[in-house]
Amino acid sequence: MEIKLGRLLIGRTLKTDELKDEKFNVFWGLPILSSDPISSVAYAGEEILLVLVSVLGIMSYKYMFYASLCIVFLMCLLVFSYRQTIDNYPNGGGAYIVAKDNLGTIPGLTAGASLTIDYILTVAVSTSAGTAAITSAFPSLLPHKISITLAMILLLTIGNLRGIRESSKIFGIPTYFFVISVLAMIVVGIVKVDIFGYMPKPLYEIPKATGDITILLFLRAFASGCTALTGIEAVSNGIPSFKDPAQKNAKKVLGLLAFVVLVIFGGLSYLATLYHAVPNPDQTVISQIAIQVFGQGAVMYYVIQATTAIILIMAANTAFAGLPLLLALMAKDGFMPRQFTKRGKRLGFSNGIIVLAIMASVLVILFRGETHLLLPLYAVGVFISFTLSQTGMLTRWFKIKEKGWRHKAFINGLGALVTFVTVIIIGITKFIHGAWIVCILMPVIVITMMKIKHHYGLVAEQLKLDIHEKPKCIDFSEQKRYVIIPIDTLNKSFLKALNYARTISDNIIIFHVSVDDVATAKLIKKWEEYGLGIPIVVKKSPYRNIVGPLVKFIESEEYAAGPMDTVTVVMPQFVVAKWWGNILHNQTSLFIKTMLLRRRNIAMVTIPYIIEE
Amino acid sequence: MEIKLGRLLIGRTLKTDELKDEKFNVFWGLPILSSDPISSVAYAGEEILLVLVSVLGIMSYKYMFYASLCIVFLMCLLVFSYRQTIDNYPNGGGAYIVAKDNLGTIPGLTAGASLTIDYILTVAVSTSAGTAAITSAFPSLLPHKISITLAMILLLTIGNLRGIRESSKIFGIPTYFFVISVLAMIVVGIVKVDIFGYMPKPLYEIPKATGDITILLFLRAFASGCTALTGIEAVSNGIPSFKDPAQKNAKKVLGLLAFVVLVIFGGLSYLATLYHAVPNPDQTVISQIAIQVFGQGAVMYYVIQATTAIILIMAANTAFAGLPLLLALMAKDGFMPRQFTKRGKRLGFSNGIIVLAIMASVLVILFRGETHLLLPLYAVGVFISFTLSQTGMLTRWFKIKEKGWRHKAFINGLGALVTFVTVIIIGITKFIHGAWIVCILMPVIVITMMKIKHHYGLVAEQLKLDIHEKPKCIDFSEQKRYVIIPIDTLNKSFLKALNYARTISDNIIIFHVSVDDVATAKLIKKWEEYGLGIPIVVKKSPYRNIVGPLVKFIESEEYAAGPMDTVTVVMPQFVVAKWWGNILHNQTSLFIKTMLLRRRNIAMVTIPYIIEE
Repeated sequence: MEIKLGRLLIGRTLKTDELKDEKFNVFWGLPILSSDPISSVAYAGEEILLVLVSVLGIMSYKYMFYASLCIVFLMCLLVFSYRQTIDNYPNGGGAYIVAKDNLGTIPGLTAGASLTIDYILTVAVSTSAGTAAITSAFPSLLPHKISITLAMILLLTIGNLRGIRESSKIFGIPTYFFVISVLAMIVVGIVKVDIFGYMPKPLYEIPKATGDITILLFLRAFASGCTALTGIEAVSNGIPSFKDPAQKNAKKVLGLLAFVVLVIFGGLSYLATLYHAVPNPDQTVISQIAIQVFGQGAVMYYVIQATTAIILIMAANTAFAGLPLLLALMAKDGFMPRQFTKRGKRLGFSNGIIVLAIMASVLVILFRGETHLLLPLYAVGVFISFTLSQTGMLTRWFKIKEKGWRHKAFINGLGALVTFVTVIIIGITKFIHGAWIVCILMPVIVITMMKIKHHYGLVAEQLKLDIHEKPKCIDFSEQKRYVIIPIDTLNKSFLKALNYARTISDNIIIFHVSVDDVATAKLIKKWEEYGLGIPIVVKKSPYRNIVGPLVKFIESEEYAAGPMDTVTVVMPQFVVAKWWGNILHNQTSLFIKTMLLRRRNIAMVTIPYIIEE
Repeated sequence: MEIKLGRLLIGRTLKTDELKDEKFNVFWGLPILSSDPISSVAYAGEEILLVLVSVLGIMSYKYMFYASLCIVFLMCLLVFSYRQTIDNYPNGGGAYIVAKDNLGTIPGLTAGASLTIDYILTVAVSTSAGTAAITSAFPSLLPHKISITLAMILLLTIGNLRGIRESSKIFGIPTYFFVISVLAMIVVGIVKVDIFGYMPKPLYEIPKATGDITILLFLRAFASGCTALTGIEAVSNGIPSFKDPAQKNAKKVLGLLAFVVLVIFGGLSYLATLYHAVPNPDQTVISQIAIQVFGQGAVMYYVIQATTAIILIMAANTAFAGLPLLLALMAKDGFMPRQFTKRGKRLGFSNGIIVLAIMASVLVILFRGETHLLLPLYAVGVFISFTLSQTGMLTRWFKIKEKGWRHKAFINGLGALVTFVTVIIIGITKFIHGAWIVCILMPVIVITMMKIKHHYGLVAEQLKLDIHEKPKCIDFSEQKRYVIIPIDTLNKSFLKALNYARTISDNIIIFHVSVDDVATAKLIKKWEEYGLGIPIVVKKSPYRNIVGPLVKFIESEEYAAGPMDTVTVVMPQFVVAKWWGNILHNQTSLFIKTMLLRRRNIAMVTIPYIIEE
């Protein structure tokens, strides 16, 4: 039943050599790799307004425009910087690789940790924002916000476990739909007001101004809007997915991406100003604008909401493609549990997908699916990875000093500086709103990764055979074989274990821990009736501890085996057909095994005894 | 560290023969065994009012009095019935035993299931009500209601794991404190109004009447108040804990208990009428009365609240004594997992204690620590067990027909009838408020218990040795020993496994599942260089499955062993010092073991390889 359900959801298992990547040209590369940054315009403008509107009132729109300008400028700078990364890392230049390559392990791990946090947040934020687009159109769904968001994550998880990358071109279409419908809204919205002289009536009242603009307030607004720049790295990460000339195509996509974001982010900011949209927990800013432009209930209104929701889900999907790959990369380097390198039934990195889904779901539940509660955690990590990646490029130029390196170093240096300043701004202005969580998590993750590496190193070192080490050539059959069989009661499973033990040794001791004198006396009597000549040793255990006396006995002087001899312990194990059957039996044998396995010279033999049901 | 913490909390391990029960006389037996029924007056009256007040307004107090009267009558009937149970079951006559003894397995299990549900609810309800007593006095703690309740459960759990029964006399004192302080409040409250002519001002407004009394409404009020009768069974259960003459003492305690409940339940109902207390989510009825009688901030007010909270915690504690014992009893009969019969380090039934704590905590969280949301689930089970126990006694009289049996049968028959009618009333009036949950749970639990019994029966049957079955006497050393060693890479842990295998057999095959051609070629080359003459078999696994090919190989024709020969599989196992180390390794060997153990003729040998850290 379970297996069938799994198969229905995930699909048939694929062979390893069925692994192949689709390559895309610029036309498909743009929408597939850029759904994350393009979709973030759905919430970035709103976040800026949210910071400003309660203080500045109607004046907010002016400063929103300035903040947007700064963000667009920052984006252009990043595009130029990343073009250089693309040139230098034809196999994909994520921040982890660039930083590790050029700056060393700790900066690399820091970038890896911040990217990990960001991918998880991408899923949580994008699905929450997608839900907000839906609940804006259908307010009756508002109480089910969290469930809807979790359902989205579940769907993405199943889809990615199936390996939806196979048919990824389909995922380019929603991005174009979104861009086109938003462009239509921008054009209609501007024409309606500026040409036909329509006077917009705000859906919600603009709060009265309570103060004046301050630098801190403006920086907070700017920091809030910086979430629009998340996901730009996806393009430089995705170079191997491009058709040849891959690097050239990637650079084209990067440029186009910047242009698209510029147009729709700018256009939406302008519309928000024209139509005086006011951030509201029940309805997104885009939804308010769309209602005023197209009218409540208009088909185009629903088109806007639907395409917004879908592109946000696509954005979350990019994290499902990105994080498992990053984890596999870090696991291959030994910084993450090795399981992340294993491909699942459908050749996706299943463990990474599942971990991502769980973490994102936990975030959604903790932050009650509120986009603006999650966002303060978001941008810090992104900009830390930007900074590290740019700094990495900068040092690279100083090292290789190729033709025109000064010019290139200047661009990356400026990028590093500006993104670093942005990290500081975001860190300070958003610290109490949640950035502190990231500041605590980052070093914890980095230290954990170092510990993991250390552990794997130790294991490898201790397992490694010296070049000249060969198996011993002594006559093994001559060795004395010490066998102990613990007994509780005389039954068929014990007899099976005994029979096996007799095939490997004639030096057997039966060992019994007594917690009940009457039962023990009965056992000994029965055993002696068998007359096999195999000795039985009984130890009393007043503290009802079974394992302790056994271990003590093995280590004791009474027992013939020397400290260097291997002792074989033979134990029967119940095997019940149904999993819940195990709950019904004392797992004493499991405890015994766990304890004994800590000894150096032991062999644990398990004889299964199957219970039919 | 863990071990030390555990020891600090739980205390040193006790020897089995340190098990002894303290015996108590009537003076201590009363408070210790009756904290549950006595404490329920803290919420029973309030629940009656809650049902009535929104409909009847000021008229509620009159019908509250009538409902209380019915409940007190019911209690007297139960006392007479249970006196007869005490006479007949000197070793403790819980509903489970009485019903199983006289009515058969299914009624016994039904009683057991309902008692189990009730004990869990006793903990959840009593701790929630205890918290309500605290938050009434300190309203600033209201937002932490659930945490406080969970902390109480945790404390009780630790206390009971330590085995607080040892010093149980101390637990009698709070009951007396509670009774005395409530009596004082009753006397002062009555004197103040009836003699000094004080005119009480209700703290909360009494709602306007919106309707008239109906039979259904009255029955609902009665059903709500029936929670006052929970826990009466504790006395007949606890007979073995009394000093001789145990049965006589138990009967005395039962009579005294009824008298105490009569006085304080009656007294509190009368005070509620005098002072017009109105149920309110933020303040209990008792707290309202205490404020009016003693004045806000008076010492006596805090004494009332404190003793109420403490006796409620004591009531929860009785469930911690009762349920683990009941579970152990049912486990001994094979209806519950055998682990419930094991005594922990401090000789308490630790598993039962822990299960109870978890279940009660879950209930508290699900019902947000609201007493009146939990209560509708409570009384159904109690009265089902009452009915079954009384019916059991009734049939007993018909069977044994001892002197005066008609009179006794009449009392138990009346008890059975009245409690049965009460079950119906509670079931119907409280069905939609939560009683339905119990109606679903009961059959589920009973069926589960039957399944458990069936399972243990099967296991015992299949393990049992026939009287004449003896170990075989063939020459075991003559047997051919087939050994397979799976290999992934050549390393020290593999070599250790190989060395062991060579001591038990010279018929070894190395088995390798290939998922990577290059690595496999390297492995084979290295192996052949050793020149040990041990064959290596390689199977390709395009689906990256390791276990499948191994199992298939063992079962295949290629392999020399016949279907009846035992195959020994020798596998190294990593043992890492820290638990988290295990997360970092693929648990392939664990999967292999689990799969192989389902085969009938296999011996799994585990060779630990310890990684130093």
